[in-house]
Amino acid sequence: MAQAALPGFRDFYPEQFAERAHVMGIWRDVARRFAFVEYDGPPLEPLDLYTKKSGDEIVGQLYNFTDKGGREVALRPEMTPTLARMAAARANALRKPVRWFSVPQLFRYERQQRGRLREHFQLNVDILGEADVTADAELLAVAIEIMRACGLSSSDVRARVSDRRLLRAMLAALGVSDEQTPAVFGVIDKLDRQPRDVSREKLAALGMTPDSIDGLLALMGDVTLDEIERQFGGSPEVQTLLADFRRYFGCLEGLDVLDWVTIDLKIVRGLAYYTGIVFELFDAKGELRAICGGGRYDNLLQSLGGVDMPALGFGMGDVVLAELLRDRGLLPERSEGPQVWIATESPSTSHAVRRAATALRRNGVSVEYALRDQQLMKQVKAAKAANASFVLTLHDPADDNVTTRHSWNPAPPPEWDRLLADADL
Amino acid sequence: MAQAALPGFRDFYPEQFAERAHVMGIWRDVARRFAFVEYDGPPLEPLDLYTKKSGDEIVGQLYNFTDKGGREVALRPEMTPTLARMAAARANALRKPVRWFSVPQLFRYERQQRGRLREHFQLNVDILGEADVTADAELLAVAIEIMRACGLSSSDVRARVSDRRLLRAMLAALGVSDEQTPAVFGVIDKLDRQPRDVSREKLAALGMTPDSIDGLLALMGDVTLDEIERQFGGSPEVQTLLADFRRYFGCLEGLDVLDWVTIDLKIVRGLAYYTGIVFELFDAKGELRAICGGGRYDNLLQSLGGVDMPALGFGMGDVVLAELLRDRGLLPERSEGPQVWIATESPSTSHAVRRAATALRRNGVSVEYALRDQQLMKQVKAAKAANASFVLTLHDPADDNVTTRHSWNPAPPPEWDRLLADADL
Repeated sequence: MAQAALPGFRDFYPEQFAERAHVMGIWRDVARRFAFVEYDGPPLEPLDLYTKKSGDEIVGQLYNFTDKGGREVALRPEMTPTLARMAAARANALRKPVRWFSVPQLFRYERQQRGRLREHFQLNVDILGEADVTADAELLAVAIEIMRACGLSSSDVRARVSDRRLLRAMLAALGVSDEQTPAVFGVIDKLDRQPRDVSREKLAALGMTPDSIDGLLALMGDVTLDEIERQFGGSPEVQTLLADFRRYFGCLEGLDVLDWVTIDLKIVRGLAYYTGIVFELFDAKGELRAICGGGRYDNLLQSLGGVDMPALGFGMGDVVLAELLRDRGLLPERSEGPQVWIATESPSTSHAVRRAATALRRNGVSVEYALRDQQLMKQVKAAKAANASFVLTLHDPADDNVTTRHSWNPAPPPEWDRLLADADL
Repeated sequence: MAQAALPGFRDFYPEQFAERAHVMGIWRDVARRFAFVEYDGPPLEPLDLYTKKSGDEIVGQLYNFTDKGGREVALRPEMTPTLARMAAARANALRKPVRWFSVPQLFRYERQQRGRLREHFQLNVDILGEADVTADAELLAVAIEIMRACGLSSSDVRARVSDRRLLRAMLAALGVSDEQTPAVFGVIDKLDRQPRDVSREKLAALGMTPDSIDGLLALMGDVTLDEIERQFGGSPEVQTLLADFRRYFGCLEGLDVLDWVTIDLKIVRGLAYYTGIVFELFDAKGELRAICGGGRYDNLLQSLGGVDMPALGFGMGDVVLAELLRDRGLLPERSEGPQVWIATESPSTSHAVRRAATALRRNGVSVEYALRDQQLMKQVKAAKAANASFVLTLHDPADDNVTTRHSWNPAPPPEWDRLLADADL
């Protein structure tokens, strides 16, 4: 029989599960502190939920099949279509803005390369029903506070932000037509992965003049809002959008996350559906893929769910983040053992072992004990192997050398001893 | 596009998610108190992992398909095969006894009846590597403590236990041959769902004498160990097994769960792989399907994973348990709102709103505020709609009637005010 998981799928033994639980615990805690509430949908959805958004070409990357009832179905490759479906179904009843998060496992059938996974867990945080940049700032703050809660600092992780509306207006001011904009976005998206000359040629082929190309590329490194204003101040549209973008940074300052943020107009996020501010989080050393990416997608709920509602969100996978935390020594080293191991000197007290275990367990303490009669030495060894924090030894009442019924090593919180006294062993 | 989940699949809106999280929180907390550690495996597994255990006929009930790499795969219908695969792969390295639990989502393609689900979540708790009944008692105690932690009592839920080895020895003493035993087990399994006469006829057809049938059926209601001993005391095998079974009840008494337990020899659990003590939990009114079922399956790891290791475990689904808790008013009524809603009298303090939110959030408090400028009245209304526990109002410093910079309703924990003082709004 099959002795291994399918290629690209992970087994989570307790050690790996503890790492996953550590990351998910932080995700859920920060989302809760920002007053987001958790939802979930089915891991299996109708296939057309995905082809509607991404076209038929996505089918090549999906785990899709025909179920026994003849339905075309797919394991979810992303959460946003499910979110759109669920929000659309209750659009009127939902309190706005909707602040929802989810931690789905997602599936992609990719040709396997160097241990590339076919499943991962992804935190999805979304705000629906608020068009203002105040919402964009809240959203980015969630992602950054997660980094902080993981033990990372602004020198470990950088948030790069851009605004696709602003970039579009800048391109218009440079003479790029609406029709050319998507193609220019495509070149910008690849700037860091292509030689500059190739990018220049492509932009020229799209009809941009050498001057425009120079002006554009000059803004593609570190850039400030003031520099953009200096160069594009003549465009009223740029002015208006810059004012919004400035307000966004003001909100980020109020939320005390501004020192994590760099403007980077190269961040356009490949997906065509983003409509405004977009962002990605990267490790500062640039060694890993993006930790997180997201932005505003004001038209997507309309096209996916038939409901006109501005929206924004991000996805953060478990794999890259865990890799970074492991590299920095910020993951738990081993899964925790029981708090208390109860050992016994003599089988005659095994009944008392269970009574003591029950008294402690019912008060929230985790307790293990040997399930078969063993020498005391062997039990103490087992306690150590289990990584127990405290050993409680029950003494043989028939032993004349013993003055107490039980002893602890090390000394426990005083209330635990009171629990044992009440249990009347 | 698809506006609904697939038939048999659930959308978990925040209200439903809160119920699911409540149940899973109790599952995890009790498992932890009993020193079980969590693991997980892939939701998609090779098909032969399931056909190996259950034969090809199970394929009719699976979500199975051929993946793009030509592999026969299936969404997991149960967790035990994955557990066996994972445990077998590390059998030598694992500390014994293995005390593992998992909370997988499981999938079955069943012809849909009256809203029958095709997915559910199931707590799986297993002990591997311990053959003694002390382990059986620990396992049942976990299931019962979950009931107690849910707010249920021994008059709400009953645990019915049996011992297939003991029943087999009793049948042998009644003259039932080894070959007939499985068929007799099948009749016993259906006793409660068939007229007595039909059961009698079937047992007679299997070669049992009228006296044996009477003797057997007399033990199929409420029965005590003493009654079994009186009737079968002549069989040394029954004697030995009764001694174990008595020791099991002694352990349950030590664990203080004996008052939840009834002996019911009709519980044989359909599945052929159980080898010893088996149990099921039911609502005492008998209105619902079983809440939980499990037992000892000492040969399964050998046949599934090629590793000879005694084992026992149970599965507890989320659906029946939630139904019972809902019926008893033991589920949270609505999802919790944010702890604090920050309102502001004037847009001039919106920067202070974000600073206050950040100060509180970084200390674990969940905080929401309006993402657009609104009248104070409207913000207070929104706070109520969000079910916020506290409203913090920031006053307009330009307002001469105001003597404090902020006010709370109701009064907050004192440390929250200290956080605001430190934040220097």
